Parts: sequence; C-alpha cells; structure tokens
Amino acid sequence: MQKFSLEATMANIKQLDGAAMAKARERQDMLTKPAGSLGKLEDISVQLAGIFGRAVPEIKSKVVILAAGDHGVVADGVSAYPQAVTAQMVLNFLRGGAAINVLARHVGARVVIIDAGVASDLPHSVELISLSIGKGTANMAKGPAMSLEQARRCLEEGITIAAKEIEKGADVVGTGDMGIGNTTAASAVTSVICGKTPLKVTGLGTGITEEQRKHKAKVIEQAIVLNRIDPTDGLDVLAKVGGFEIGVLAGVILGTAAARRVVVLDGFISGAAGLIAYTLCPRVKDYIIAAHVSVEQGHISALKHMGLEPVLDLKMRLGEGTGAALAMTIVEGAARCLAEMATFGEAGVSEKGES
Amino acid sequence: MQKFSLEATMANIKQLDGAAMAKARERQDMLTKPAGSLGKLEDISVQLAGIFGRAVPEIKSKVVILAAGDHGVVADGVSAYPQAVTAQMVLNFLRGGAAINVLARHVGARVVIIDAGVASDLPHSVELISLSIGKGTANMAKGPAMSLEQARRCLEEGITIAAKEIEKGADVVGTGDMGIGNTTAASAVTSVICGKTPLKVTGLGTGITEEQRKHKAKVIEQAIVLNRIDPTDGLDVLAKVGGFEIGVLAGVILGTAAARRVVVLDGFISGAAGLIAYTLCPRVKDYIIAAHVSVEQGHISALKHMGLEPVLDLKMRLGEGTGAALAMTIVEGAARCLAEMATFGEAGVSEKGES
Repeated sequence: MQKFSLEATMANIKQLDGAAMAKARERQDMLTKPAGSLGKLEDISVQLAGIFGRAVPEIKSKVVILAAGDHGVVADGVSAYPQAVTAQMVLNFLRGGAAINVLARHVGARVVIIDAGVASDLPHSVELISLSIGKGTANMAKGPAMSLEQARRCLEEGITIAAKEIEKGADVVGTGDMGIGNTTAASAVTSVICGKTPLKVTGLGTGITEEQRKHKAKVIEQAIVLNRIDPTDGLDVLAKVGGFEIGVLAGVILGTAAARRVVVLDGFISGAAGLIAYTLCPRVKDYIIAAHVSVEQGHISALKHMGLEPVLDLKMRLGEGTGAALAMTIVEGAARCLAEMATFGEAGVSEKGES
Repeated sequence: MQKFSLEATMANIKQLDGAAMAKARERQDMLTKPAGSLGKLEDISVQLAGIFGRAVPEIKSKVVILAAGDHGVVADGVSAYPQAVTAQMVLNFLRGGAAINVLARHVGARVVIIDAGVASDLPHSVELISLSIGKGTANMAKGPAMSLEQARRCLEEGITIAAKEIEKGADVVGTGDMGIGNTTAASAVTSVICGKTPLKVTGLGTGITEEQRKHKAKVIEQAIVLNRIDPTDGLDVLAKVGGFEIGVLAGVILGTAAARRVVVLDGFISGAAGLIAYTLCPRVKDYIIAAHVSVEQGHISALKHMGLEPVLDLKMRLGEGTGAALAMTIVEGAARCLAEMATFGEAGVSEKGES
C-alpha cells in the first residue's frame, strides 16, 4: 500500500464543486415538494454534490473507521474506568458486541478497527489494523503526550487507511474512537485550539463526579501550561496534548477530504480530531458533516470553531462512531431524495402559484 | 374486516408495562457502555419495552400510514398551491415518486395510502384505500368543517386501518399526511386545544408570505369564533376545524396504542391529529414517539401540550410522514442496541470503578 504524505494530502484538498452544487440546488427546487421543505436534507444533498463533484451524488458504501488508543494521563485519575477497558472494548468490537457494531449493522456500514496505540497487548486478528504507534501516550501533565514524529505518523497512517477504504469503494467515512482517558485529551485539544478555559470544555466523560471534573480540568490546565503549545499548529497540539487515536482520526479526515469523499464526524473525540485537521487545513471542513452534538460540554465549542452544525442531538456521549452511524443513514436518505424523487414535470404536479 | 368503535378502542389503551420497562432499564445498565451514554436511544428502548410489554422489544415491520384530504378553507386563499395538488400528489405517492416513498424505501418501511377525503376524483387502485369521507371538508370559516358523524367515521376508519396493519405484523406505525390547506386546519386545532392565539401557531405552510400568514391567522380566528368549539372534546374540535386526514390519523394513533404498538408521529399535521387523540384519551401519549420538530411554528406548542420531546430537528416542513420515516430508523436502532449489545459480563469488560 502506498503511503501518503501529510503535505501532499493537504494540497489535494480542493474547493467543493460549485457547478455541481448549483445543479443539485436547481434539481431540489424541481422536486415534488415545496422548495426548502426537506430542510437540512436539502443542504446535505447539495454539500454531497459539491464533495463528489456530481449533480446527483450517489452513496454506495459506508464505513466507520474506529481508532483506539490509551492515554498516559489516566495516571492522574481523570477517568471513571480502568485503562484495561480500552483493550477489552477492542475485543468487544472484534466480536461485534459493542454499540457501534449494532448501529453499523443497522445502517449497513462496515466497521474498520484500528489499534492506534493501546497500552495492553492485543491478539493478532485480520480484523484489526495494528498501528501500535505507542503503548499509550505519555502523561501530558508531565510532558508531551507523544513525539512530533509519532504525531506525523498518526496523521499519515490515518490518511493511508482512509485512502485504502475509499479505494475499496467507501463514499461516506464515519469516524469513531475508543480510549479510556480520551475525553481528557479531547478537552485539552479543544481548550487550546478554541481558546476556551479547560473548565469550560471539560465534561463528565464516562461518568465522573463534579469534583472529579474540576480535578480533570486542573490536570488539563497543568498540561497546557507545561507544554507551551502553538495553538495554530495542529501537529504541535496533537503531539503535546492529543492521543494516538485522535491523530489517526485527524488523518482519516484529511485523507477522506483529499479523495473527495464525505466525512461524518462523530462526537467529542472525533471533534478534537476534526480540530487538528481543521487547524492544519481549514478547507477540510467543507468535506465534514457533523453527525451529532455530544453531551460532552466541549463539543459544541469545537463544532462552532469549525462552523459546523450537528445533524442530530440525541444526548449521546458514547463515541465509537455511534453518532456517525446514525447520521450516515440520514445523509444517505438526503442523497436518495435528491436522486430518486420525481420532479413536478415528471409527476404532473402543479407548482406554487398555479391554478 | 371488523370495525372498531372509538369508545372500545379508548378503553383498550392501557398503562405501559412498568415491569418490562424496569427490566429494560436494568439491561441498559449492564450493556458495554457507560450508563446513560446512548442518551435518547436508551429512553426510547425503555418506552418500547413498556409499549410492547417485553423487556427486550423487537421491531420486525414498519409502516407509514399516509392519509390525504382536501380543505374547504382553501377558498379563502390560505395556501400557496392549488387544491388539485392534493390528488396529484396522491398519484405521485402511488407511483413512488414522492419524498415519503424514497425515505420509506430507505428505512425499509411500507407506505399505506388513504384517500380520506380528496376533492378531485382519483382512479381506482389496489394500492389506495378509498374512504372518501367527503369531497374535501366544508369551509371552516363559514361553518363546521364536517359533521360529528363524519368526525367519528374518520376516527373509526383510522382505528380499523391501524388494526389491519398491526394484524399484518406492523410494530411501528408512522403517520403521514397530504392535503392542500391542511396547515390551516392543523393551526386551528392547535390554537383551540393548546389555548394559543391563531397568529402564534400559524406558519408559512408550503410557502406563503408574512402578509398571507396574517390573513391565514385571521381566517382561523374567524373559524374559531364562528364555530363555538369545546376545546376539551376532541370530536368537536375535529368536526369544527379539523380535516378528514387529520381525523383518520387521530384514529390510527388511537388504534395503534390500543394494540400496544408504537406510534411515530410526524410533523405539524400529525401533531394536530395527536392533539385530537390526546384530548380524547390522554394516555395515548405514552405510545407516541415524536419524530421531529417541524419548522411550522405551531408544532412545538402541540408537542409541549402532549409532553413529547422530538427525536430529530432537521428543519423539515414537508409532512407525508417524511420525518416519521427518518425517526423510525433511529427507533429501530435503539431497539437493536438494547437487544444485540453484549453485557459487561458477556464481553469480559471491566465496569466503572473497577481496577
């Protein structure tokens, strides 16, 4: 498999196809419904036209790319669950027992599982892509979470995996994550890039108390002060306070956009990956559909920073790509309405103002 | 086919099964995810358990019941489209070219099409249930939209159709509507039952101007004053300012609840049908999932009156059951997560607080 460089990929993220978008909008107004009455479905269909460069975009194959990684910062007591759960959940994904397995089956998406950097050993499996960029990150509260070389590797591996899935036919790429401690990393990334205080963008994660939340925000504050981060440099942010799975997902996002396919961005952790990708290449946001808004309080800041509006608000906070899977089926419905509905002319239906 | 009486049906709408709900909630907390992290999906699954009377509810068959009807009040210039569009759209439904056809195919639901009372003649078709309770309602601004006998017939026909679909296997029943002028009727119903001024619950319908909206609200005001309606009597509200399709859908809602199946309520017109059903039998609301919140400004008042929270907010305002179709697939995903996810024990995943 060809490896892709970060720079070449970013250079390949081009403007949306304005002509295809105009044609899609024109067709929407000819379909048998009051103009605009399908709301966000119409906007999504026009965005898809711009991404795919086709007036009538078609979705044939959907994939959720789920990256797992561990976080050294758990040593500071930021999570309600033990670190072993990351690897245990990867095994659960491989056996098909997790929420993402169920929801991906439900919407007809494949799930690709990546060990981006899980601390525990995982068995060899043809179903698992083992990148193992590290055995969990280092504790960001004591120094950088990873080296700049590791950060770059995360991104380029993510780009390569996205390219491979798209080569296999994927039109829609959802992002998913697993990693005990990764809301801490995501909050740190969101705080730095969006310029918000850690307390403002730190939530209850998998279920800590309000007191633990304050502690978690303090640990993040400490990591940010210690690491002297350049908030305008996505690679620097990723290396200092990110995570292996966050970096791989940022690469997946960039790689998907460069290949002119649509990214369906899951919740808070994916949002942090989105922020890294967006900081590296702002145009990437045109290729992103925000699946949902998470209960995690930092997520809305991340979406606003990128100018994204969530499709769903189901009070979810699980990650894994569960929100992305559900939103994908809405995205597919949007594409199908544009492609399959009859026009006023075809159906012999009178238009507005006719009598 | 057996005909069902309104009174017998209402008497058959029982409390949800509390034991099944408690078991479903217990199982949710054993599944491999932080408790509560699937948000509304968890609540939906518990509601389904209570409706079906099974700790692990299963969805095998979904249907959208779409009722069409015309409205005499269009003579007062309340709509942007000519009345002929109602019948033209019914033909479009029969040929599969409308948004609801596309979205129902997408989510794997059947569509049942009913002529509740379309003004124009429609061709005979085995795909069309011809109730033809009238050739459109009378103009509510001049007198009652229909007789009390017609109102009762709407409800009982709707109950019978729901019973028939459930007998055929439907677990989930979505509501859908078509009818030029029916946002006027829905606004009138919402105004009367929710105690809001017509202007507050009257929107732009298929696309009128702000000036036309004020005129529409005045026509509704006139209809309400003239008809001396009892807001606590659903049958009276339906007869005076409702519509044939609204009455049939109210019957579908009551019939579905009486058979212990779930109603997925579409947008504003379905909301008015929901209000009629709710006024007749408040307990029916336990069997309803509100698919989405419509752009039509009266819809939120209707949902609040019934204590329902919408699943989706996609800025849609089309009707036909399009919002219901999309929400159904979320509802099905919720049921599947509860049924198919592994528990902590099964997956060997550590629980919160373990180390």
